[in-house]
Amino acid sequence: MVAVRLGGLDHVISASRFDRSLLTTLFARAGALEGTRGQSLHGRIMATLFYEPSTRTRLSFESAMLRLGGCVLGTEAAHVFSSAMKGETLEDTIRMVCAYADVIVLRHDREGAAAQAASVATVPIVNAGDGPGEHPTQSLLDLFTIERELGRIDGLHVVICGDLRFGRTARSLARLLCLYEGVRISFVAPDVVQVGEDIRAFLRDRGVSFTLHSRLEEVIGTADVVYQTRVQKERFTKLAEFEVARSAIRIDSATMARLPARAIVMHPLPRVDEIDAVVDDDPRAAYFRQAANGVALRMALLEMLLA
Amino acid sequence: MVAVRLGGLDHVISASRFDRSLLTTLFARAGALEGTRGQSLHGRIMATLFYEPSTRTRLSFESAMLRLGGCVLGTEAAHVFSSAMKGETLEDTIRMVCAYADVIVLRHDREGAAAQAASVATVPIVNAGDGPGEHPTQSLLDLFTIERELGRIDGLHVVICGDLRFGRTARSLARLLCLYEGVRISFVAPDVVQVGEDIRAFLRDRGVSFTLHSRLEEVIGTADVVYQTRVQKERFTKLAEFEVARSAIRIDSATMARLPARAIVMHPLPRVDEIDAVVDDDPRAAYFRQAANGVALRMALLEMLLA
Amino acid sequence: MVAVRLGGLDHVISASRFDRSLLTTLFARAGALEGTRGQSLHGRIMATLFYEPSTRTRLSFESAMLRLGGCVLGTEAAHVFSSAMKGETLEDTIRMVCAYADVIVLRHDREGAAAQAASVATVPIVNAGDGPGEHPTQSLLDLFTIERELGRIDGLHVVICGDLRFGRTARSLARLLCLYEGVRISFVAPDVVQVGEDIRAFLRDRGVSFTLHSRLEEVIGTADVVYQTRVQKERFTKLAEFEVARSAIRIDSATMARLPARAIVMHPLPRVDEIDAVVDDDPRAAYFRQAANGVALRMALLEMLLA
Repeated sequence: MVAVRLGGLDHVISASRFDRSLLTTLFARAGALEGTRGQSLHGRIMATLFYEPSTRTRLSFESAMLRLGGCVLGTEAAHVFSSAMKGETLEDTIRMVCAYADVIVLRHDREGAAAQAASVATVPIVNAGDGPGEHPTQSLLDLFTIERELGRIDGLHVVICGDLRFGRTARSLARLLCLYEGVRISFVAPDVVQVGEDIRAFLRDRGVSFTLHSRLEEVIGTADVVYQTRVQKERFTKLAEFEVARSAIRIDSATMARLPARAIVMHPLPRVDEIDAVVDDDPRAAYFRQAANGVALRMALLEMLLA
Repeated sequence: MVAVRLGGLDHVISASRFDRSLLTTLFARAGALEGTRGQSLHGRIMATLFYEPSTRTRLSFESAMLRLGGCVLGTEAAHVFSSAMKGETLEDTIRMVCAYADVIVLRHDREGAAAQAASVATVPIVNAGDGPGEHPTQSLLDLFTIERELGRIDGLHVVICGDLRFGRTARSLARLLCLYEGVRISFVAPDVVQVGEDIRAFLRDRGVSFTLHSRLEEVIGTADVVYQTRVQKERFTKLAEFEVARSAIRIDSATMARLPARAIVMHPLPRVDEIDAVVDDDPRAAYFRQAANGVALRMALLEMLLA
Repeated sequence: MVAVRLGGLDHVISASRFDRSLLTTLFARAGALEGTRGQSLHGRIMATLFYEPSTRTRLSFESAMLRLGGCVLGTEAAHVFSSAMKGETLEDTIRMVCAYADVIVLRHDREGAAAQAASVATVPIVNAGDGPGEHPTQSLLDLFTIERELGRIDGLHVVICGDLRFGRTARSLARLLCLYEGVRISFVAPDVVQVGEDIRAFLRDRGVSFTLHSRLEEVIGTADVVYQTRVQKERFTKLAEFEVARSAIRIDSATMARLPARAIVMHPLPRVDEIDAVVDDDPRAAYFRQAANGVALRMALLEMLLA
């Protein structure tokens, strides 16, 4: 594949591995694959090795592999490898699964696990989330969704909401947006979970314009994208503060009334009440399309790794 | 498919959805598919979404899909969607899985869950049991088994035994038998789990003849079908009463001696001791053939929904 | 298949079922299948029925089936059949799964379960471990590895280390080696887990030469194969004794320095610290190749049972 040669893609551990050229190739291929069924990975085997449950991510990867004619084997309970098996290292487990499969999709509760796996693997490792670390295919499908929905990423005003301190997806999206020209980011979050200094420095270093807010209404009028995430009650010491903060960033029909006509609302899902169910019927509600995009994006990735 | 056009079959939520014409089409196709392997669903994906374990039902559906050349993805632990994922609605989960699969087989512990899923689904939903609600494919395979074993359903004397108050399969079978002419039903059960007034009224409304009994020996001499189910000890306040009731409806070699030569014994399985293991070798013991019929029946259903 | 006719292979319950001729056929086929993908089992279905977790064994079997073009269905939690389903017998479960699949790979915690399953099965049963009983495909792949690595088995000096009293794999290997000419076995183990009188009698009856040792260094200088297994702390009443025993049989760089240049080190895995990780880079460390051989060996077995 040209993409592989272009990017030398061998594992997918971090979204930072992707440059704009590789993203362009990836998104073009994902767009072409959407809704198709093929046989390009016929006879190839993908192992899903999940040390913590994530049915959503696992099923999305498995659907992608099956649509390309490939096969799947895996476990929802990979921790029996290490615990029940009394202390086997992740490296030993990976060495073995490399004998069973042509690509390994790994979900682990420990940051750095995917890189550790890649260090001994003889087949490609795809990081499907390593604890507080990264979940690169989520970030890639987020970006892919923006491009598909709005036709471009350059020059957009992206509002990122919710838990920006601990939320893996929000932080990754901010970093990836730096690859595009003229993007402006508004971070909307309660103080306790406002975006950290690490991300702010990252953006400043790259000359990306951003502002901080506590209420969605301050920025929604000019938004192209509103990327909502969930804020967890446990982050707050006082329940009353949580209620105030939540209502300031909640998306409901009043919020939608202020949102420009061609903007979109995204969410990594699952959604609880941070987006009201009445919003679902609005054509600007892109979050279910976003989830569906995960299949095509992962098809393109698997093809780049294996074909 | 003619069947789809005939019945407009889009989801399989309740057995009451099926009329005699649709059943005739379904059973004919199931009979034709029995023991075959094909490619009619090549490239199609079935998701099994099980919120409670039912390995038997899940494996039967998966075998049916694989025999038609289709693929399977799924989870034995779908409750991690909703609980571990902190409150996502079933509707949101279904919307997402619709992006991964071409048909969803749903098992849920809550009555009405399948209908709720169908209300937002963009792919067919098959109810594989919704708590105390329905388990329509079990009822369909029961009826299919009677027709295959005896060549007809009209005019039969069907004895339904065991837990008729709470037993989902026994109650569904009684309702479905109303679609046929001249069927006579004998309900044999201890008083505490005798068939409820709802079913009795249903039968009376449709002019179906039925009688109530507490001992199997009262009716077995003229039975064409004996449909046995398990009575749970917990239904009884006194253990002695349970023992008496159980022995009155137990099927053993003495029972089989009274059963007509061309009659059959059925059971939805799993069976514990309500049918003695010595009965297994009797050619009239149809319960393992009945279980095997589930694969062909589900093949026919999946084809009608997807082909 | 010639092999089937030769051996009349219908189930794989015990390694003792295999004679030298059948092993020769099996290993030749496994060697030919290594690294290949085919379609010889296209349309066939394998069920993995695991009553206790063994992800490693399950994934290896599933990979083998998929590489031959077959399909897989199964459960990691087969105990829900019997317990949650309230007392169904293993025989009833097997009768049903025979209707779903063309071959059943069974893992059970009770010795004799595989034979019990085979007694009612209408499709081949493969024993993937029955508690303290046997795990014949592990033994077969061990022997296959020796032949592939060293080109022969006749005349070798095989050192078997670790838990020889309770260790299923070590005991099975010793028995299988009796099928070959001029093999010499050195059993190296702490007294509390030294090889039992049953195995010693078995070897004496067949005229196989063996010696007992407590320190690996006594025999390693002439070894062709060192088969290491893990000794569990729980076997010892005093921790100090465990530490002494463990260090006497541990394999590290000092051990490797004494091992002949063409010898190999094997281990059924998972390995903890009974083989030092520095040994992994030594070309004589054959344990990961041994694990990989499990796929080809199981491909050959499945083909013999189904093709």
